[in-house]
Amino acid sequence: MIMSDYEFMKQALALAEKGVGRTSPNPMVGAVVVRHGQVVGRGYHQRAGGPHAEVHAIDDAGSQARGATLYVTLEPCNHFGRTPPCTRKIIDAGIRRVVVAMTDPNPGVAGGGNAALQAQGIAVTTGVCEKEARTLNEGFITWATTGKPFVIAKCAATLDGRIATRTGDSRWVTGPASRQFVHRIRHAVDGIMVGVETVKKDDPSLTTRLDGQAGSDPTRIILDTHLSMPATAKMIAQASDAPTWVICGPDAPADRRHALEVSGSRVIEVPLEGGLIDLPALMERLGAMDITSLLIEGGASVLGSAFAAGIVDKVCFFYAPKILGGDDGVPICRGAGPERMQESLPIHDLDVFRFDADVMLQGYLKPR
Amino acid sequence: MIMSDYEFMKQALALAEKGVGRTSPNPMVGAVVVRHGQVVGRGYHQRAGGPHAEVHAIDDAGSQARGATLYVTLEPCNHFGRTPPCTRKIIDAGIRRVVVAMTDPNPGVAGGGNAALQAQGIAVTTGVCEKEARTLNEGFITWATTGKPFVIAKCAATLDGRIATRTGDSRWVTGPASRQFVHRIRHAVDGIMVGVETVKKDDPSLTTRLDGQAGSDPTRIILDTHLSMPATAKMIAQASDAPTWVICGPDAPADRRHALEVSGSRVIEVPLEGGLIDLPALMERLGAMDITSLLIEGGASVLGSAFAAGIVDKVCFFYAPKILGGDDGVPICRGAGPERMQESLPIHDLDVFRFDADVMLQGYLKPR
Repeated sequence: MIMSDYEFMKQALALAEKGVGRTSPNPMVGAVVVRHGQVVGRGYHQRAGGPHAEVHAIDDAGSQARGATLYVTLEPCNHFGRTPPCTRKIIDAGIRRVVVAMTDPNPGVAGGGNAALQAQGIAVTTGVCEKEARTLNEGFITWATTGKPFVIAKCAATLDGRIATRTGDSRWVTGPASRQFVHRIRHAVDGIMVGVETVKKDDPSLTTRLDGQAGSDPTRIILDTHLSMPATAKMIAQASDAPTWVICGPDAPADRRHALEVSGSRVIEVPLEGGLIDLPALMERLGAMDITSLLIEGGASVLGSAFAAGIVDKVCFFYAPKILGGDDGVPICRGAGPERMQESLPIHDLDVFRFDADVMLQGYLKPR
Repeated sequence: MIMSDYEFMKQALALAEKGVGRTSPNPMVGAVVVRHGQVVGRGYHQRAGGPHAEVHAIDDAGSQARGATLYVTLEPCNHFGRTPPCTRKIIDAGIRRVVVAMTDPNPGVAGGGNAALQAQGIAVTTGVCEKEARTLNEGFITWATTGKPFVIAKCAATLDGRIATRTGDSRWVTGPASRQFVHRIRHAVDGIMVGVETVKKDDPSLTTRLDGQAGSDPTRIILDTHLSMPATAKMIAQASDAPTWVICGPDAPADRRHALEVSGSRVIEVPLEGGLIDLPALMERLGAMDITSLLIEGGASVLGSAFAAGIVDKVCFFYAPKILGGDDGVPICRGAGPERMQESLPIHDLDVFRFDADVMLQGYLKPR
């Protein structure tokens, strides 16, 4: 069978994905070196600060890289960052053709790597599996182009749209397969955000617990205008490779701040908007702190505020095969809604996933 | 290609489905006559009171029915009803083998037709495509075995579980393809039920409007405890082949009752339960009036009451790709919910359907 550019790029994409949860604030990148129709080198960006995918793949190919084709999921860099430019590595290795899935999303950098290669007589093809490559790095791309994290809003609801009963009971709405997928999202993102009410009610750990595999904990970000967060909260006391950041307004009491800082969490002050944390301002702040992607896990007030503030990029709504009934349970969103149905927020590219008996509907707040 | 029993039965099922919306209170039934591997006769039950599927198929086959095999989606009847017994027709035609998808669901009748055929030396195979046949006639089977209609609860909601805004605006939540499918359900069922508040707010026609095809209107059933329904409502004034029934409690004012009856609707009095129409009692009553299947289209209070009363057999919940936001919009259900998530009603066999950008989740309240 003759493998096409498309099929080799799929292999590079699969390699890229192995870096999930480890590369931020860099993108996930995968690469394969192909000579005479055979893959002779494979590599991916394994962790921020480590070598780029191209370097791993070319080193893996060794002398067979000469005259070969390199498939890489992102345009090779042409500048010195934490590592030397990949274009140099490619040229020195004698690669004859480079196939790229997508150009660098960074404004002012896009196209530079490709041009540098072409200037050395290397053939460059761009746009192979571009859509898949863009989806893989949707978080990084949003952050690189806007300076703000890519925000995913998640909920787990009954078919009639309730995330908990009137007493707050939500154990469990969805099944183990859905919950495991949420841990995969936690592993993939840089930050996880909830309101302080969720902390007080559930005392969650917000860590990543993957089946049979070590996970990367996201930075825990708690919206807590007045710093009412207990310094004894599990997420502060627990062992975790990620910190807890508590977000407060300008008038939060200094003694509470001190207590939280002593307990090991970081307190970040941001402006308020209508008495609540100014979410767009917070997103700017988090972006500047290298939070490239953020999962909002609730509760209903935070989710409602996030949609109202326009900070959400993607929804992952899980629906369990059950009807709670009544309207006294906890809804998916709280807050004021619009007057007209036409004012609702359109969701683009709605897609359906099954997790055992549950259904997950995923979509985007902006057209892609 | 040699066709199997399975494939011929599929043809019989497809024929049966042509009777949708026309056969009640009879089931949909289809039949094919096969001789030497060729279909030589086709038939289906076209309307209540008309000939059964077997009669049509055997007549269509003519002299070729002799020695042939009959595939029929429901066990042939062995009794005089509005038509003579089909077993007699089959025996007289010289059919040598009969393949049946499902036995008659009527207690005391089940197996009788098959036995009568076997007594005449005709080979009978049962259970071919049984699941499909049972799904096709899920309404009829429920009614035949319980005396109550098969109840479908439908809603059209945003992803965050709102069927209208705080002002009641719901035009439109879902798209044209979803709404057309709802008209197909209306065509298929005997009755459609809403609360009087929906009538006052939306003044709906509740008729069946199929694209490019005449539809059968369901009987309109309005829950109106105190008979506050306007006698000028569109559904009473409009031309329709189906009546409007207004369901009231024992204390409804006689003058209102008179006004509605004069306007052409029928008023049916049923007991109350907690100040509201006793829904299980109403279901018994409707079943006795040959309503074999009922679509509940809302609003939220009626849906909430229906789930609480345990009368729902199936849900068809449409979700549109939009987020309304906030919690002041109209929820899917109103009323009191349970204290624990474990007390929610489990939905079985949850299935996903796409209608353009919308998603429909369908499932059953009882295991099948």
